[in-house]
Amino acid sequence: MKLIAITIVALLTSSLVASSLMTDATKAGLKPIPSSTTELLKLIDNPKNPITPKKTELGKKLFFDPRLSKSGFISCNSCHNLAEGGDDGLSAAIGHKWTVNPHHLSSPTVLNSVFFDSQFWDGRDPDLEKQAQGPILAGPEMAATKEHVVKTVTSIPAYVAEFKAAYGDNVKIDFEKVTDTIASFERTLVTPSPFDDYLNGNEKAITTAQKKGLKTFIDIGCATCHTGIAIGGSMNAFNITATYKYQNVGDFKGDKNGMVKVPTLRNITQTAPYFHNGQIWSLKDAIKEMGRVQLGKKITSKEASSIEDFLISLDGRKTNISIPNLPASTSKTPKPDIN
Amino acid sequence: MKLIAITIVALLTSSLVASSLMTDATKAGLKPIPSSTTELLKLIDNPKNPITPKKTELGKKLFFDPRLSKSGFISCNSCHNLAEGGDDGLSAAIGHKWTVNPHHLSSPTVLNSVFFDSQFWDGRDPDLEKQAQGPILAGPEMAATKEHVVKTVTSIPAYVAEFKAAYGDNVKIDFEKVTDTIASFERTLVTPSPFDDYLNGNEKAITTAQKKGLKTFIDIGCATCHTGIAIGGSMNAFNITATYKYQNVGDFKGDKNGMVKVPTLRNITQTAPYFHNGQIWSLKDAIKEMGRVQLGKKITSKEASSIEDFLISLDGRKTNISIPNLPASTSKTPKPDIN
Repeated sequence: MKLIAITIVALLTSSLVASSLMTDATKAGLKPIPSSTTELLKLIDNPKNPITPKKTELGKKLFFDPRLSKSGFISCNSCHNLAEGGDDGLSAAIGHKWTVNPHHLSSPTVLNSVFFDSQFWDGRDPDLEKQAQGPILAGPEMAATKEHVVKTVTSIPAYVAEFKAAYGDNVKIDFEKVTDTIASFERTLVTPSPFDDYLNGNEKAITTAQKKGLKTFIDIGCATCHTGIAIGGSMNAFNITATYKYQNVGDFKGDKNGMVKVPTLRNITQTAPYFHNGQIWSLKDAIKEMGRVQLGKKITSKEASSIEDFLISLDGRKTNISIPNLPASTSKTPKPDIN
Repeated sequence: MKLIAITIVALLTSSLVASSLMTDATKAGLKPIPSSTTELLKLIDNPKNPITPKKTELGKKLFFDPRLSKSGFISCNSCHNLAEGGDDGLSAAIGHKWTVNPHHLSSPTVLNSVFFDSQFWDGRDPDLEKQAQGPILAGPEMAATKEHVVKTVTSIPAYVAEFKAAYGDNVKIDFEKVTDTIASFERTLVTPSPFDDYLNGNEKAITTAQKKGLKTFIDIGCATCHTGIAIGGSMNAFNITATYKYQNVGDFKGDKNGMVKVPTLRNITQTAPYFHNGQIWSLKDAIKEMGRVQLGKKITSKEASSIEDFLISLDGRKTNISIPNLPASTSKTPKPDIN
């Protein structure tokens, strides 16, 4: 009888907390990935570069094609590995000739990056279309030139045919058309999670521990910066030059105000190491460090564990992506140059 | 009337040639990938390491997991890229710290390698189970140690669970168990082609031009070495120290007899550059060079084109492989070491 009473109280409490919690989360600015495909498509689309199945399929091939790089060895997927968390699991990105990112910057995840208000750690690019150009041309990354990319793609008849199918027979295959197509694919890389199911109204989608963690997350103030659909990605707010424990690693200075973009917390359990310079491997330590640096609060181990419980509910469902079958090179395709 | 007569004669000739051609191909030792799954499974299986769906699924993850390498950046798929021809399209393999293969050896394709009688360019390993160990431990490739691999895999509970599911609760997860599992996946990477359909009895599976090319291929003597199911892979027969045009590139000396393994011709249009040291990019040039070096014959451009027609019929159907979702690292997982 006592057990039943406790159970009922527990159930009631849980249900009450949860209901008001859902409202609290929404008030705090946390937003779900919509469950409706129509709504989602509207949200991830770029009217200047509308998503179509032909574009995303071609974009997937280009995303996986190492021939876009100077060496022929590095593709977008090398650092934004879709088998991992959409990143590479390294402290600092490795690129052409094993060059470590000169600012010791870590590869951010490509997953759900469509929901960011800006791209790159300093938020310098407005969208994925612009972002996709950067790493291909950067010397320490894919080290290609625009000419190399265009020559490679246009030397392969199957690619030309796919560009025509996607954009019409009169398509001009220039560098920007290639990167727009890659961006179109990247826009589809969204991973709805139990937390989205919860915010979309399914009270049981996340556990009681995760709900408690969500409450702690909001109460402590994490949602001030980690907000919106990406639970991050909407502002440059991390003060790199203040008191960040590892500010001495790398020479990255953030944006013109010394601020670093707030990263997404989606799939965070799969994207260690953390921070722009990849110096913290433990999620719990990362949570504590953020409390100290950004909120001026000592987050206890218990609170950090609870927040971690919540963050696990952001582990998303990856779509089933098949490995593309890249079309063969021809005699006109530029040869790989590993030097 | 004249046209009709010619057509009829042509059709008759084509049909007659084809029928006897099928027999000629079989007599020459060319064998199809069986169309029956039961027969195929028997053929690709290793009784000492029987293929099971749980093993191949886990093996796929390990094949794609860069954390098996010292750097955390290179996986089996980096050089045996399944989006390409099961290789990397480079003259010589690149590995840890951008090291070029010290003997200037090219990565051979993993596709259909299960049909090879031996593995590596000098044929030193008997099967994929043994082969899979090499590149993981080789300093210029993945640069790992056995301890690193075992520690990585056993630090990830999801991997441990999959090993138990595949081998039983008492499984000892050692280095050899990991590579056996990868080999199990690799054994499934077979790509049946129009030529197989033809040898399996479908007269119309390949074109008239391809049939002519097949006849030339047999008549000139190519099938003497490029034989069996892999159309290669069954003997070390390429005399590297004789007159190969680019024998000066790299210091590879072949096996103890100075011989190099005959590579497969399956998917050959997708695996340029050719030869163990990747020096010839044009398939036609490669065909001519082989005639000169191995057969002591001058293959004309017309004959080379005809043989090339046949080789296109070896472009296989790749199975639809989905990108695996690799389990997250834990605090016990060895950290990447890019140095």
